[in-house]
Amino acid sequence: MEQKIGLIGCGTVGQGLLQILHEKRDYLREAFGFEARVVAIADKLKGSLVLPDGIDIPTVLDLLGAGKGLAEYPKAAPAQVEPLDPLDMIERTEAAIIAEMTYTDIKTGEPAASYIKKALRHGKHVVTSNKGPAALHYHEIRDLARKNGLQFRIEGTVMSGTPVFHLAECGLAGNAVREVKGILNGTTNFILTKMETEGMDYGPALALAQKLGYAEADPTADVEGHDALAKVVILSNVLFGGSLKTSDVPCQGISSITKADVEAAKAEGFRYKLIGHAKIEDGAVAASVSPRKLPLTDPLAGVMGAQNALSLETDLMGKVTIQGAGAGKLETGFAILSDILAVHRC
Amino acid sequence: MEQKIGLIGCGTVGQGLLQILHEKRDYLREAFGFEARVVAIADKLKGSLVLPDGIDIPTVLDLLGAGKGLAEYPKAAPAQVEPLDPLDMIERTEAAIIAEMTYTDIKTGEPAASYIKKALRHGKHVVTSNKGPAALHYHEIRDLARKNGLQFRIEGTVMSGTPVFHLAECGLAGNAVREVKGILNGTTNFILTKMETEGMDYGPALALAQKLGYAEADPTADVEGHDALAKVVILSNVLFGGSLKTSDVPCQGISSITKADVEAAKAEGFRYKLIGHAKIEDGAVAASVSPRKLPLTDPLAGVMGAQNALSLETDLMGKVTIQGAGAGKLETGFAILSDILAVHRC
Repeated sequence: MEQKIGLIGCGTVGQGLLQILHEKRDYLREAFGFEARVVAIADKLKGSLVLPDGIDIPTVLDLLGAGKGLAEYPKAAPAQVEPLDPLDMIERTEAAIIAEMTYTDIKTGEPAASYIKKALRHGKHVVTSNKGPAALHYHEIRDLARKNGLQFRIEGTVMSGTPVFHLAECGLAGNAVREVKGILNGTTNFILTKMETEGMDYGPALALAQKLGYAEADPTADVEGHDALAKVVILSNVLFGGSLKTSDVPCQGISSITKADVEAAKAEGFRYKLIGHAKIEDGAVAASVSPRKLPLTDPLAGVMGAQNALSLETDLMGKVTIQGAGAGKLETGFAILSDILAVHRC
Repeated sequence: MEQKIGLIGCGTVGQGLLQILHEKRDYLREAFGFEARVVAIADKLKGSLVLPDGIDIPTVLDLLGAGKGLAEYPKAAPAQVEPLDPLDMIERTEAAIIAEMTYTDIKTGEPAASYIKKALRHGKHVVTSNKGPAALHYHEIRDLARKNGLQFRIEGTVMSGTPVFHLAECGLAGNAVREVKGILNGTTNFILTKMETEGMDYGPALALAQKLGYAEADPTADVEGHDALAKVVILSNVLFGGSLKTSDVPCQGISSITKADVEAAKAEGFRYKLIGHAKIEDGAVAASVSPRKLPLTDPLAGVMGAQNALSLETDLMGKVTIQGAGAGKLETGFAILSDILAVHRC
């Protein structure tokens, strides 16, 4: 069955999704009866494209790869490449699924939250990798989706395409999840790994992470724990029905951890990890982000480099831990695809 | 929606399933609209019960817990408690789903394979935790299920309820899985852990595993790798479409590993694990079971005690590893429930 898809944002993640949809088109058709027709793209920088008959993906990827805009899409009528605000694109497109992949604003969730709500009000399912709306407005948006008989899916907001929400919803369905504990930020885990395995101090390890592209020029969001914090809040919202605000959660990053701290922990048989933690107790959710010394027997202690992992404490299965990539073009593009496939299945 | 369920085998796993179905009945109804009505049980030792109106689960658990047979179920008509071969039970019951939970015969897969095929020919979905039919007759049974528009689900055959097949089918759907590598036997992992962390030699570590109930009086199936071998064959069958026979797969256990081997590996920064491995290359599947020295950076190296874990190498997500329980009454009971819920969803 064909699914008409509209993209808001066509940066790294959007292009990762397009690449997968194109390269795997035969497999997706054979294995899942799934045929993607991308009918609209709106990107603030790269321009817009609304083509009800479907966009030729290689053409779009070539244009963007060459640094050109969507306005140069060949043989398009002027109205089809007219720059559109995503809110207007939503009105014009016949897409049944909107993939929202713009940047995260963790203070307001905007403008993504407005895009998502408008799409749901116009009868479109929404899948997103954007942490802002999921961390700040999860219940409001989920309720809006339910009211309209639509899906709002957010696999890519935590650990990219490593399937934490699918795991809870599908493989572990029937369990009560009571607690989660995770390594939710790859940059800080990379830095801590380098500090332990190569005896680096914090500063040089951060500089290496920046040089390799794991950390931004301004590394605050990663190293002070804000990125992990948003993910802890999302996990609480989804798994525990919590309505935490980021300001409710104590948050400490790794910038004050020294090489001496890491070495002292190692000598005692422990390993520092930046741990996002959330727990439901007597109906209330308690959460935190902080560096913790884990015993080496903890499944999270062995998670090295830029990898992410999450342990779920469940009533029937005890502790189940999933480890995998936490970022990446294809990995986050796949997160979007996995949510689209989930919509397609239902 | 009510699902009528018939149980073949009502030992540890069957009683674990019944306990979960009973204790979680309100939750399962609210969360999934799922209502279980157990309408039949056939167990070679404990007797049979065929009650179209549904069996009272606490009554059955009390009887079996007191060492009594199903024949003592109160107020049952003689025909309802007449000892039945499972093949006859399948003919008499209106169950839409058969949960097959008898013992594994890894040489023939019988009698479970015959039960499963008969159930599928009678229009019933089958879920099972039995490794025999899945390792020896997977494709034949799956094809029979497909031909009849039914499901044949086997989550509990590998790592109990830790969801490896659900993960591949649901959260990772869209990925090509090219290779799997796992710790698939808890007994041997417990023994290797004790040898390393407590400096025990193989013999005493095995004796401790037997004392704690992790190992059987005859530990051959575990320590010589036969249990892990069956699981590797099942993984190959399901994930790679392979048709390996257990005799095709080189299999070495841990009984020749000495304390000195474990210590020498540790000194080099490695850790011994019994690894089940399967890989698809040029359309052919290569598989093995053998003790391997893993670097401590391998996600499987940190898996300690009786836990199990599986790493899946995928094309889009790279390596994804899931760790959890590999056995247990509630854990395997949950595996059966998770497959029943999957049937219920479709």
